[in-house]
Amino acid sequence: MGRWEPNACGRLEQAALELYGERGFDGTTVAEIAGRAGLTERTFFRHFADKREVLFAGSAMLHDLLTIAVADAPATAAPLEATAAALEAAGAVFAGRHDHSRRRQAVIDANAELRERELIKLATLAGALAGALRRRGVPDPAAALAAEAGIAVFKVAFERWLGDGSRDLPHHIRESLDELRAVTAAR
Amino acid sequence: MGRWEPNACGRLEQAALELYGERGFDGTTVAEIAGRAGLTERTFFRHFADKREVLFAGSAMLHDLLTIAVADAPATAAPLEATAAALEAAGAVFAGRHDHSRRRQAVIDANAELRERELIKLATLAGALAGALRRRGVPDPAAALAAEAGIAVFKVAFERWLGDGSRDLPHHIRESLDELRAVTAAR
Repeated sequence: MGRWEPNACGRLEQAALELYGERGFDGTTVAEIAGRAGLTERTFFRHFADKREVLFAGSAMLHDLLTIAVADAPATAAPLEATAAALEAAGAVFAGRHDHSRRRQAVIDANAELRERELIKLATLAGALAGALRRRGVPDPAAALAAEAGIAVFKVAFERWLGDGSRDLPHHIRESLDELRAVTAAR
Repeated sequence: MGRWEPNACGRLEQAALELYGERGFDGTTVAEIAGRAGLTERTFFRHFADKREVLFAGSAMLHDLLTIAVADAPATAAPLEATAAALEAAGAVFAGRHDHSRRRQAVIDANAELRERELIKLATLAGALAGALRRRGVPDPAAALAAEAGIAVFKVAFERWLGDGSRDLPHHIRESLDELRAVTAAR
């Protein structure tokens, strides 16, 4: 093991985002990221499997957070209520990350492979939500629909939050959920 | 141009699905598909860019069908109503394709790259639906939410139809849409 580097993970993430923005994702190497962060490649690989994972390191945390929050929702909460509570809990994690999230999104939007990876991440989260709802006893198709609708709300809310950081992500999630309710109620 | 081959496209599709089922997608070559269909590789490449596209050739048609159906929905139709009408029109195209669709899905489920391609297809269709709704004058986020919710309904309905072909896909779409309305209305 190497010596302890204070906040190596955050420094690597910051350096990677800067370089991806300057040179593009494909034009950046792990050596350059480590160099910009003042760390070694060896340290980089202690934190991330590859340069793509710098952008998706939060997925596992989001996954755990969503499934735990669904499990912890009151027993009386309807499936979409439990889902919404989980999404708001996940949204709270992004506090103070608006600028970071905007820059990350710009990198992803500019690269087809990263856009695909992002879609897979969201689909995986929808699957995790559906599984957590089933474990609460929610039958299908309600579990699958609440999970998919929840991820749709999260996607739309996230995009709106990137464009308007004056209100936090949980606010945008609640607003988009209300909008979904209005859209599905309209005949 | 080679000579005209009766139903070459359908024969290639059929041969490809058989081979993907027998040998796996990765273990099948274009030469083998063409051979099984009694056609040449040259004919294969007149119909499909590569062996993956045999599985996704319908995407462009679905895309056009959905956007046209949204545009053609009555001016008074609410966003999700217009979306539902489009999904049902798309669903009707799968009549007589239940066995084919089940076999296609088994091939896709068995291959990570194909599962990713399927996710990208669905995300692209959601984007097309949202665009068509915006052209009807539906503002965001209602357009994005109706489109994403619509694709969620389609996904769930399609899976249920694969498991129960005794009722047609449009039936499952209507049922899943009702279920989504119930899920979003529940407090």
